[in-house]
Amino acid sequence: MKKTLTAAVLLIGDELLSGSIRDENLGHIATTLEQRGIRVRETRIVPDIEDDIVDAVNALRKRYDYVFTTGGVGPTHDDITSDSIAAAFGVKNIIQQPVFDLIKGYLDGKGIEFTAAAQRMAFAPEGAEMIYGANSMIPGYRVDNVFVMAGVPRIMKMMLSAIVETLQIGSTILSREVHADISEGEIAAALEEIQTANQNVDIGSYPQDTGSTRSDYRVVFVVRGTELDEIEQVCKSIYGACIDLKVRAQIAESAE
Amino acid sequence: MKKTLTAAVLLIGDELLSGSIRDENLGHIATTLEQRGIRVRETRIVPDIEDDIVDAVNALRKRYDYVFTTGGVGPTHDDITSDSIAAAFGVKNIIQQPVFDLIKGYLDGKGIEFTAAAQRMAFAPEGAEMIYGANSMIPGYRVDNVFVMAGVPRIMKMMLSAIVETLQIGSTILSREVHADISEGEIAAALEEIQTANQNVDIGSYPQDTGSTRSDYRVVFVVRGTELDEIEQVCKSIYGACIDLKVRAQIAESAE
Repeated sequence: MKKTLTAAVLLIGDELLSGSIRDENLGHIATTLEQRGIRVRETRIVPDIEDDIVDAVNALRKRYDYVFTTGGVGPTHDDITSDSIAAAFGVKNIIQQPVFDLIKGYLDGKGIEFTAAAQRMAFAPEGAEMIYGANSMIPGYRVDNVFVMAGVPRIMKMMLSAIVETLQIGSTILSREVHADISEGEIAAALEEIQTANQNVDIGSYPQDTGSTRSDYRVVFVVRGTELDEIEQVCKSIYGACIDLKVRAQIAESAE
Repeated sequence: MKKTLTAAVLLIGDELLSGSIRDENLGHIATTLEQRGIRVRETRIVPDIEDDIVDAVNALRKRYDYVFTTGGVGPTHDDITSDSIAAAFGVKNIIQQPVFDLIKGYLDGKGIEFTAAAQRMAFAPEGAEMIYGANSMIPGYRVDNVFVMAGVPRIMKMMLSAIVETLQIGSTILSREVHADISEGEIAAALEEIQTANQNVDIGSYPQDTGSTRSDYRVVFVVRGTELDEIEQVCKSIYGACIDLKVRAQIAESAE
């Protein structure tokens, strides 16, 4: 039986921490990986500071099957991801000639100078494996179980679609939902019983804020696991508990 | 001279990692804290698993002046934040009688039973200091330098506005921006020189994706620091470097 694989996401960039830019990558990474049976178990956001990136990479790569980083791979002084990944692995950050040639050819064609700063984009840690996609000129790359991607969402998506083709596939995570007009406190005891009796699924309970676009019910219960029969059975139990409490409820496909 | 204080944010909840719900709290927390001179230096998102929460809390509280958690404080089986914070500090998770009485009074008034499950919402670690706000019934709380808040954005905001009144104020972080129609590679060398000559500010360089709502220029440079004179001087230097390269540019108030 295939096991569920685990991943961590490391979002790199001061701007994500200051509230000036809202991350747009995590959701896409999580749903793309889930489709392949890889579950994001932890996410960290760190600033453009080498020690912080090194610490996070080294903690996460030991703990999870895969680590995915975004950001810090451009040409400016605050783009220090490749230097930091190299430091985390104790190797040098070196020029990758095929990438260098690709970028140079592209800029030459446009009559743009390939500055020393821009050449930094052709660097990656010694031993890195470049992962070329059909649509993006600059490849993401892999060092051991760490995958390095751009932060700009459009480019990140192209890199990720090439990367996922190279990954092992875990057992697919499926989910269904029960929506109900109930307060969590009323159903919490029943819910805990159902969870205890069904250890192979995870039941999450999410109260909906006023104006939620997800559901017009007051709470969404999400049941997640790898066996659809079991998930559906658990949804029926939760639905039954809601009906016993005489509240409006329905079982739904998962929005995820 | 006041120093800039540091904070970490710990977002707790499976749903934030699976991509099923997008975090709406980090941006608000970061901007609210920045106005008080407290800078978010790291963010982690962890699932509803006690060991993971304990590890994160213990790592972050030693490293930063303040830690702010969101989520996992409701009445259901997956709401384990208070248990986990208690475990992180090696104390018991105990009933807080004033909170218990508040919730009971509220539910009695509505004719709703105060179930054993709902009573979990009246628990907090031994020694926790409840922080009551003008608008929210259930208080956030503090244990040492760790502040615990709800995950529902509307409630989190009420808790945070009460909490920030109790915090030490650091030196305020200010920022200004330069927007320019340039490729990062062209200006990277000049930018690095400017950064090296002005160590008291942080210069970030953010290429704008197609369809960016932030700027119709190709790159936004954000200059951050505590002294406005210095920030404005650095912005002028960056603007000057852009003009030298014969590209369209402008200095702007920061959107942050």
